[in-house]
Amino acid sequence: MPKFEISKSVIDNIKELINKSSDVRLRKRLKDLHYADIAEVIYELSTEQATYLIKLLESEKTADALAEVDEDIRERILEKLSAKEIAEEIEELDTDDAADLISELPEDRQEIVMSQIKDSDHVEDIRELLTYNENTAGGLMAKELVKVEENLSVLKCLNAMRAQAEEVTRVHSIYVVDEHNILKGRLSLKDLITANSRAIVKDIYIPQVDAVTIDQPGEEVADIMSKYDLEAIPVVDKKKQLVGRITIDDIVDLIKEEAEKDYQLAAGISNDVEANDGVFELTKARLPWLFLGLLGGLGGVFILQDFEKIMELPELRSLFFYTPLIAAMAGNVGVQSSAIIVQGLANNLVKGSLLPLLFKEIGLGLINGLVLALILILFGFIINQDPIISLTIAGAMMGVIIIAALVGTFVPIILNKRGIDPAIATGPFITTANDIFGIFLFFYMAKIFLGF
Amino acid sequence: MPKFEISKSVIDNIKELINKSSDVRLRKRLKDLHYADIAEVIYELSTEQATYLIKLLESEKTADALAEVDEDIRERILEKLSAKEIAEEIEELDTDDAADLISELPEDRQEIVMSQIKDSDHVEDIRELLTYNENTAGGLMAKELVKVEENLSVLKCLNAMRAQAEEVTRVHSIYVVDEHNILKGRLSLKDLITANSRAIVKDIYIPQVDAVTIDQPGEEVADIMSKYDLEAIPVVDKKKQLVGRITIDDIVDLIKEEAEKDYQLAAGISNDVEANDGVFELTKARLPWLFLGLLGGLGGVFILQDFEKIMELPELRSLFFYTPLIAAMAGNVGVQSSAIIVQGLANNLVKGSLLPLLFKEIGLGLINGLVLALILILFGFIINQDPIISLTIAGAMMGVIIIAALVGTFVPIILNKRGIDPAIATGPFITTANDIFGIFLFFYMAKIFLGF
Repeated sequence: MPKFEISKSVIDNIKELINKSSDVRLRKRLKDLHYADIAEVIYELSTEQATYLIKLLESEKTADALAEVDEDIRERILEKLSAKEIAEEIEELDTDDAADLISELPEDRQEIVMSQIKDSDHVEDIRELLTYNENTAGGLMAKELVKVEENLSVLKCLNAMRAQAEEVTRVHSIYVVDEHNILKGRLSLKDLITANSRAIVKDIYIPQVDAVTIDQPGEEVADIMSKYDLEAIPVVDKKKQLVGRITIDDIVDLIKEEAEKDYQLAAGISNDVEANDGVFELTKARLPWLFLGLLGGLGGVFILQDFEKIMELPELRSLFFYTPLIAAMAGNVGVQSSAIIVQGLANNLVKGSLLPLLFKEIGLGLINGLVLALILILFGFIINQDPIISLTIAGAMMGVIIIAALVGTFVPIILNKRGIDPAIATGPFITTANDIFGIFLFFYMAKIFLGF
Repeated sequence: MPKFEISKSVIDNIKELINKSSDVRLRKRLKDLHYADIAEVIYELSTEQATYLIKLLESEKTADALAEVDEDIRERILEKLSAKEIAEEIEELDTDDAADLISELPEDRQEIVMSQIKDSDHVEDIRELLTYNENTAGGLMAKELVKVEENLSVLKCLNAMRAQAEEVTRVHSIYVVDEHNILKGRLSLKDLITANSRAIVKDIYIPQVDAVTIDQPGEEVADIMSKYDLEAIPVVDKKKQLVGRITIDDIVDLIKEEAEKDYQLAAGISNDVEANDGVFELTKARLPWLFLGLLGGLGGVFILQDFEKIMELPELRSLFFYTPLIAAMAGNVGVQSSAIIVQGLANNLVKGSLLPLLFKEIGLGLINGLVLALILILFGFIINQDPIISLTIAGAMMGVIIIAALVGTFVPIILNKRGIDPAIATGPFITTANDIFGIFLFFYMAKIFLGF
């Protein structure tokens, strides 16, 4: 059983061997490592050390590891490799990874590298993949797949398949096409093995097959594959011709990336950043949201200034002590409501009339608000606060909570209807809007109740 | 090509057919639907309508759909089915789904249902699976798999495989075991097809195979499968005996669920709730976090009360106008820092010395703080605020931002070291802590600068 994590001592050992240029021992050390493990090792090395490793080992060993690491690390390594060395790596990669890697090179280098790749079919496939938008099925798919024509016999089919399977890492389904390469159905390896070798493909294939079209968004492909529990899905063009195949491992990566992006958006971080990114990149992702919060806070300054006169009235000035509490409650309730709606929209659970949602959020606000209001009144009693003030604060807070829940619910729905990613509404946006709106509401409601 | 979403008109049509008991047309309508689509239909039906559908159709058609829907919907349907009817559904399910379904039944019903299942091997497998914790490899795995003994010839192996493959929906790898069922390696279908039929398994199998042990946490299994791009992984017990297999579709579900849970935690929602859950369930998930926010807000009241006397000083009282701004900045910065660290911890990017992280967060705080401070000073200039006050506010805010970033960074790290899920620290927890701490810091720093 292999171990699933590269220990620090293994990494230190590899670093030492690189620094001492102990090539033979280094090759031996890395011989049995999976490419995902080599990628993990590369993360721990300097660009120079990583480049040394890539140049030393066979491309067969390093290409997938190189495809696996983060784009910025890959870029730094590729800068140090010659066009010929890059071409060697690309020859070992599946077309989807190869196209991704090529697309990251500076434009003038792309052609030079491609001219060094020996296999002209591979180059042609890569050129085709480069024409598709990376967020679509075309951008996700690989050209490697196993297909047979419907008129072949099972025996011929097995032979054709053996040849094609050489290039395909894992065979999931054998796709069945007609003489014009139109996708007709599929054949499972299991069926092929169990079939009589003289049977014709036409008689035994399954004429149903899920497929996506080349321009379908990646997220849709992910939804379809995870809904139907698929491990691979064929991609067709507008004429229904079979042009590629998407496998579940790329979809798993996509799902994880999307989830991380949504999580970061909810926390007020745009762009995809990671803990080990530089200060500048992190600032670029974080500062805009903080700026938004600052603007909201400055709005709050104006609102509070308007009520400055009650600072002169000892019996009312305590309202000011509650502003952080009101802002916090409004912000938190808003984020809770919007997070649930954003997920509901993503999972297609929000449809039909919005009235039930409206009533539910009001109901939720009432229940939550009532419990919290009672605590506030109790607190007022304990600190000997004028009961009228306590009641006013508690009542105004309930109002703020209900309104904040409604804002949190309907802003994402409106954004979604206008074709804007509703995830952007969770987090800082809703928090800031509700902070300010909540404080405004709180003081105006208090003004009405207390008549100042 | 099938369509990938059930339209409203299809659902209305199905409802109508159910209400009119048009069984023949209903069967025809549902004949070509995938189980995931039938599950989608069930979501739109009342419990009575769904039960009607389940009773009408063959279990072969409905069992997987029933396994696919949410637990609470399934429970309501199962209540209306007889033990025999449930047993029929379970007979059609793979052992992992079957065990999940059984485990959701009331204890007294479990035995009655199991006694009605005809296939005694299936019952035995389910009983075994019921003994494992649902969050471990044992709880995720199914008993269905294809294995061969290392001493078999390829021909015998193909025959043995054909028999086993009947029961296995998809064959990924053929696992190779010795005579004591100890996992030795794997054989791909591709290799088997390409091999000479007289060869012995021992000579052609790949002696390396990734495997997990029965008590490994589900999240670890997900990490391993997504790191190594696996579509299935065998599960072994402590003696290395092959006991089950986990497939990637279950792992995709797990990854999505975990991501939704983390997202909700970041938004202050505990438990796994959905937009269409009831008010009571939603309150249970949301109220505790609001209560936490309220406690923080009440802490804020005490802090602000302490500075009540500066309300009498017209030149200083404007500090109070900035409390929501300070609270918002402290909260937002804290959430940003903690979100990045929580993801970094999950992705194993945070290791080694923590000093660089400390310096980075201080640097980030300084840069962000400086930009925002300049805006504050400009704002003070525009509204004609005493420059000393503006400078004090801007300086204190910078201090608050740096401290908030450090709290956001180190609280998750400390929680993680103590074995607590750091995700709990993002969102309301950090926001509330930083709100209060920020306001406290702000007023104390102002007190020192301005000497009141």
